[in-house]
Amino acid sequence: MKVLVVYDIANDSLRNKIAEILKDFGLKRIQKSAFIGFLTSEERKDLERVLSRKSLEGNDRIDIFPICDRDLRFHSRIKHDGVYYGEKWE
Amino acid sequence: MKVLVVYDIANDSLRNKIAEILKDFGLKRIQKSAFIGFLTSEERKDLERVLSRKSLEGNDRIDIFPICDRDLRFHSRIKHDGVYYGEKWE
Repeated sequence: MKVLVVYDIANDSLRNKIAEILKDFGLKRIQKSAFIGFLTSEERKDLERVLSRKSLEGNDRIDIFPICDRDLRFHSRIKHDGVYYGEKWE
Repeated sequence: MKVLVVYDIANDSLRNKIAEILKDFGLKRIQKSAFIGFLTSEERKDLERVLSRKSLEGNDRIDIFPICDRDLRFHSRIKHDGVYYGEKWE
Protein backbone atom coordinates (compact mmCIF):
# COMPACT_ATOMS: atom_id res chain seq x y z
CA MET A 1 0.00 0.00 0.00
CA LYS A 2 1.13 3.57 -0.58
CA VAL A 3 2.08 5.60 2.49
CA LEU A 4 2.28 9.34 3.04
CA VAL A 5 4.80 10.39 5.70
CA VAL A 6 4.63 13.92 7.11
CA TYR A 7 6.78 15.22 9.93
CA ASP A 8 7.46 18.15 12.25
CA ILE A 9 11.02 17.89 13.58
CA ALA A 10 12.58 20.81 15.46
CA ASN A 11 16.27 19.86 15.13
CA ASP A 12 17.68 20.62 11.65
CA SER A 13 20.17 17.75 11.45
CA LEU A 14 17.63 15.23 12.78
CA ARG A 15 15.08 16.50 10.25
CA ASN A 16 17.63 15.93 7.46
CA LYS A 17 18.39 12.47 8.84
CA ILE A 18 14.67 11.59 8.79
CA ALA A 19 14.49 12.71 5.13
CA GLU A 20 17.48 10.48 4.30
CA ILE A 21 15.82 7.48 5.96
CA LEU A 22 12.62 8.05 3.99
CA LYS A 23 14.61 8.25 0.74
CA ASP A 24 16.43 5.04 1.72
CA PHE A 25 13.01 3.36 1.99
CA GLY A 26 12.35 4.49 -1.58
CA LEU A 27 9.82 7.20 -0.78
CA LYS A 28 9.50 10.31 -2.99
CA ARG A 29 9.65 13.81 -1.52
CA ILE A 30 6.50 15.78 -2.43
CA GLN A 31 6.92 18.67 0.00
CA LYS A 32 9.75 19.80 2.29
CA SER A 33 8.41 17.58 5.09
CA ALA A 34 6.25 15.13 3.20
CA PHE A 35 7.13 11.92 1.34
CA ILE A 36 5.03 9.35 -0.47
CA GLY A 37 5.61 5.88 -1.88
CA PHE A 38 4.80 2.17 -1.82
CA LEU A 39 5.76 0.09 1.22
CA THR A 40 4.80 -3.46 2.11
CA SER A 41 3.34 -3.79 5.61
CA GLU A 42 6.65 -5.42 6.60
CA GLU A 43 8.58 -2.40 5.31
CA ARG A 44 6.16 -0.05 7.07
CA LYS A 45 6.86 -1.86 10.38
CA ASP A 46 10.62 -1.61 9.71
CA LEU A 47 10.26 2.13 9.01
CA GLU A 48 8.34 2.64 12.26
CA ARG A 49 11.07 0.79 14.17
CA VAL A 50 13.90 2.78 12.53
CA LEU A 51 12.15 6.12 13.08
CA SER A 52 11.12 5.39 16.65
CA ARG A 53 14.76 4.70 17.57
CA LYS A 54 15.70 8.26 16.59
CA SER A 55 16.00 10.68 19.53
CA LEU A 56 12.91 12.75 18.83
CA GLU A 57 12.19 15.80 20.99
CA GLY A 58 8.98 16.32 22.95
CA ASN A 59 7.08 18.20 20.23
CA ASP A 60 8.47 16.25 17.27
CA ARG A 61 5.84 14.31 15.28
CA ILE A 62 6.15 11.82 12.43
CA ASP A 63 2.85 10.66 10.93
CA ILE A 64 2.61 7.68 8.61
CA PHE A 65 -0.65 7.52 6.63
CA PRO A 66 -1.30 4.41 4.54
CA ILE A 67 -3.48 5.62 1.63
CA CYS A 68 -5.24 3.25 -0.76
CA ASP A 69 -5.15 3.91 -4.50
CA ARG A 70 -8.88 4.68 -4.52
CA ASP A 71 -8.34 7.57 -2.08
CA LEU A 72 -5.24 8.79 -3.94
CA ARG A 73 -7.36 9.28 -7.04
CA PHE A 74 -9.17 12.07 -5.17
CA HIS A 75 -5.94 13.77 -4.07
CA SER A 76 -5.74 17.40 -5.17
CA ARG A 77 -2.65 19.62 -5.32
CA ILE A 78 -3.14 23.37 -5.31
CA LYS A 79 -0.32 25.41 -6.88
CA HIS A 80 0.06 29.00 -8.04
CA ASP A 81 -1.19 28.03 -11.50
CA GLY A 82 -4.17 25.84 -10.62
CA VAL A 83 -5.52 22.66 -9.05
CA TYR A 84 -4.16 19.24 -10.10
CA TYR A 85 -5.88 15.93 -9.39
CA GLY A 86 -4.64 12.37 -8.84
CA GLU A 87 -1.02 11.41 -8.28
CA LYS A 88 0.54 14.66 -9.50
CA TRP A 89 3.59 15.63 -7.44
CA GLU A 90 5.39 18.33 -9.48
CA MET B 1 -14.87 11.68 4.09
CA LYS B 2 -11.93 12.76 6.23
CA VAL B 3 -9.26 14.86 4.53
CA LEU B 4 -5.64 15.49 5.42
CA VAL B 5 -4.29 18.85 4.23
CA VAL B 6 -0.53 19.42 4.20
CA TYR B 7 1.17 22.52 2.83
CA ASP B 8 4.50 24.15 2.04
CA ILE B 9 4.02 27.93 1.89
CA ALA B 10 7.05 30.23 1.75
CA ASN B 11 5.39 33.48 2.86
CA ASP B 12 4.76 33.64 6.62
CA SER B 13 1.57 35.69 6.55
CA LEU B 14 0.10 33.64 3.70
CA ARG B 15 0.94 30.45 5.58
CA ASN B 16 -0.91 31.79 8.63
CA LYS B 17 -3.85 32.77 6.42
CA ILE B 18 -4.01 29.22 5.02
CA ALA B 19 -4.06 27.83 8.56
CA GLU B 20 -6.95 30.17 9.45
CA ILE B 21 -8.91 29.04 6.40
CA LEU B 22 -8.42 25.37 7.35
CA LYS B 23 -9.60 26.09 10.90
CA ASP B 24 -12.62 27.93 9.46
CA PHE B 25 -13.48 24.73 7.56
CA GLY B 26 -13.43 22.92 10.90
CA LEU B 27 -10.19 21.03 10.37
CA LYS B 28 -7.93 20.14 13.32
CA ARG B 29 -4.23 21.01 13.32
CA ILE B 30 -2.11 17.89 13.84
CA GLN B 31 1.27 19.33 12.85
CA LYS B 32 2.52 22.86 12.09
CA SER B 33 1.57 22.46 8.44
CA ALA B 34 -0.93 19.62 8.57
CA PHE B 35 -4.65 19.57 9.34
CA ILE B 36 -7.22 16.80 9.37
CA GLY B 37 -11.01 16.61 9.58
CA PHE B 38 -14.29 15.65 7.95
CA LEU B 39 -15.47 17.49 4.82
CA THR B 40 -18.32 16.67 2.47
CA SER B 41 -17.26 16.53 -1.17
CA GLU B 42 -19.09 19.87 -1.60
CA GLU B 43 -17.03 21.40 1.21
CA ARG B 44 -13.85 19.94 -0.26
CA LYS B 45 -14.63 21.63 -3.60
CA ASP B 46 -15.29 24.92 -1.76
CA LEU B 47 -11.98 24.57 0.08
CA GLU B 48 -10.13 23.98 -3.20
CA ARG B 49 -11.75 27.10 -4.68
CA VAL B 50 -10.92 29.27 -1.67
CA LEU B 51 -7.31 28.05 -1.50
CA SER B 52 -6.69 28.30 -5.24
CA ARG B 53 -7.72 31.98 -5.16
CA LYS B 54 -4.86 32.75 -2.75
CA SER B 55 -1.75 34.21 -4.39
CA LEU B 56 0.53 31.22 -3.99
CA GLU B 57 4.18 31.50 -5.03
CA GLY B 58 5.88 29.24 -7.57
CA ASN B 59 7.10 26.63 -5.09
CA ASP B 60 4.10 26.74 -2.73
CA ARG B 61 2.15 23.47 -2.49
CA ILE B 62 -1.11 22.59 -0.77
CA ASP B 63 -2.06 18.90 -0.89
CA ILE B 64 -5.53 17.66 0.02
CA PHE B 65 -5.68 13.91 0.70
CA PRO B 66 -9.10 12.36 1.23
CA ILE B 67 -8.48 9.37 3.55
CA CYS B 68 -11.11 6.72 4.27
CA ASP B 69 -11.69 5.53 7.83
CA ARG B 70 -10.29 2.10 6.97
CA ASP B 71 -6.94 3.65 6.02
CA LEU B 72 -6.95 5.95 9.03
CA ARG B 73 -7.07 2.90 11.30
CA PHE B 74 -3.56 2.06 10.07
CA HIS B 75 -2.22 5.57 10.72
CA SER B 76 0.79 5.61 13.02
CA ARG B 77 2.26 8.56 14.91
CA ILE B 78 5.84 8.36 16.07
CA LYS B 79 6.73 10.56 19.04
CA HIS B 80 9.67 10.75 21.46
CA ASP B 81 7.91 8.29 23.78
CA GLY B 82 6.68 5.67 21.32
CA VAL B 83 4.45 4.77 18.37
CA TYR B 84 0.70 5.43 18.53
CA TYR B 85 -1.87 3.88 16.18
CA GLY B 86 -5.23 4.99 14.83
CA GLU B 87 -6.61 8.50 15.12
CA LYS B 88 -4.26 9.76 17.83
CA TRP B 89 -3.27 13.40 17.29
CA GLU B 90 -1.72 14.52 20.61
